[in-house]
Amino acid sequence: MLDVCLLGVGGMMPLPDRFLTSMLFRLNGKMLLIDCGEGTQVTAKLLGWGFKNIDIICFTHLHADHISGLPGLLLTIGNSGREENLLIIGPKGTKRAYDGLSTIFPELPFNVDIIEIDIDEENNISEEINISGFNIQAMFMEHKIPCFSYKIEVKRTGKFLPEKAISLNIPRELWGVLQKGNEVEHNGKIFKPNMVLGENRTGIKVCYCTDSRPLERMHSFIYKSDLFVCEGMYGEEEKKEGAIAKKHMIFSEAATMAKYGNVDELWLTHFSPALTQPQEFIQNATNIFKNTIIGYDRISKTIYFKD
Amino acid sequence: MLDVCLLGVGGMMPLPDRFLTSMLFRLNGKMLLIDCGEGTQVTAKLLGWGFKNIDIICFTHLHADHISGLPGLLLTIGNSGREENLLIIGPKGTKRAYDGLSTIFPELPFNVDIIEIDIDEENNISEEINISGFNIQAMFMEHKIPCFSYKIEVKRTGKFLPEKAISLNIPRELWGVLQKGNEVEHNGKIFKPNMVLGENRTGIKVCYCTDSRPLERMHSFIYKSDLFVCEGMYGEEEKKEGAIAKKHMIFSEAATMAKYGNVDELWLTHFSPALTQPQEFIQNATNIFKNTIIGYDRISKTIYFKD
Repeated sequence: MLDVCLLGVGGMMPLPDRFLTSMLFRLNGKMLLIDCGEGTQVTAKLLGWGFKNIDIICFTHLHADHISGLPGLLLTIGNSGREENLLIIGPKGTKRAYDGLSTIFPELPFNVDIIEIDIDEENNISEEINISGFNIQAMFMEHKIPCFSYKIEVKRTGKFLPEKAISLNIPRELWGVLQKGNEVEHNGKIFKPNMVLGENRTGIKVCYCTDSRPLERMHSFIYKSDLFVCEGMYGEEEKKEGAIAKKHMIFSEAATMAKYGNVDELWLTHFSPALTQPQEFIQNATNIFKNTIIGYDRISKTIYFKD
Repeated sequence: MLDVCLLGVGGMMPLPDRFLTSMLFRLNGKMLLIDCGEGTQVTAKLLGWGFKNIDIICFTHLHADHISGLPGLLLTIGNSGREENLLIIGPKGTKRAYDGLSTIFPELPFNVDIIEIDIDEENNISEEINISGFNIQAMFMEHKIPCFSYKIEVKRTGKFLPEKAISLNIPRELWGVLQKGNEVEHNGKIFKPNMVLGENRTGIKVCYCTDSRPLERMHSFIYKSDLFVCEGMYGEEEKKEGAIAKKHMIFSEAATMAKYGNVDELWLTHFSPALTQPQEFIQNATNIFKNTIIGYDRISKTIYFKD
């Protein structure tokens, strides 16, 4: 099972009653954060999942409302007693931004590794990165500066099939290791997990998309997600022109992606500060994709494997 | 009159119920801010004085909890329509920190000027800087990194004395200019304000001191302040040793400076996150300096000229 929490639902600037958009994932006690604007550590504190086990921080892009909370968060993670390396993933320029921000937090009690994902409009999907059980993939989006959507998956191996293991004469002492999905060498012979497992089962898939125009290639990227978290900067249909100019989306555009992506559920987020009552415009989304929820600070969910 | 507001009273990290320590001054519609940690723009928004007229931002030092809110605040000031230059004042390293942080806010609709004040342990008091009616002076403190206290004064000229102007044969058309404290040349002769004014009157004086050990030289720096805002990281007397090690203060040390500085009023701030109920320890301060107030987010006051 995977716990997810949308820590905030604001865009542009933090407001007294709305934190900036970011999302926290928790899997077997390990955590992954996407985006970290000013105040993200405060809403994370209100959530109460702790800070020490944040292993990975992914950035969609390097606009201040998505990254300005990084110095404070890293210091708070340091104060929580973390000593293990922390991984930061983001677009080109992430190292430069990190170095710039680090002028105000010169020392941390842990090392920070940085992966800059090299994708662009042409070559628009990244390799998968596996870390702490999270399978991470980025898609290049359409914003004013390079911006990624992220797919976070928890993959699931097939069912353990003892009859298969017996028929292939797999030594019984190897069953446990193979069952967990690991290869093993025994008496000079390689044994693979698929020798004791059935077909891969459906895992858990959550996609996060903010600060972009809608894109057709997202339909396959988010296909059959358990949850699709997507920006809806504006609720009103008549704000579409403004959304096009500012490289954002209106509710109906997010809902259209959710529909063609055939996802289970859509959470809208990254509301304009002027959109004080996003609930008023929910029908602009639900008319297209019924299972739409207007996100709010710290909306959370536990997602289970389907079978 | 001068409006002052302590925007937050926290130290180290922003908390759900306590913003980081910073202070806003307003004089004739112009504003000066001291320190800007993560979330300062949110508490400033709750206060409601607006953002456009923040002319000056002073930094005590360059630790993240005092400066990490700068990128977001500058963007919000930009969104408020400001186009006039903004002045940043701070210790050596302020330009470098600004350049580092600016990697996440590449463009602003106004220019930023930066003054790095060059004082140290030996030469520990700065020149006075006059801007937007605020008279600003810095004192070098004792912290882990270079750190300043600030004295913000509103100076007040003497009373206009028409009998003095008449006795010195000052042309009547010059009275208005001189009365406002400006020199003027007329028919090749220089006229000075003191030719029409009485003795300078007492102005308004507010001092702000955070992130330091107490220092004797502060007694004269803060002498007869209308308001002295000072850190009290810990309330308990038995935490003095920890305060010495971490270069902070306990309540009784702040109160002792207030007493010897003969100030009107002391507001304590910059409480440790562990100090959840600072009110419990107020007697450790009031036993020494009676007029002590435990600061809280957005405690405000209007200070008037005394006569």
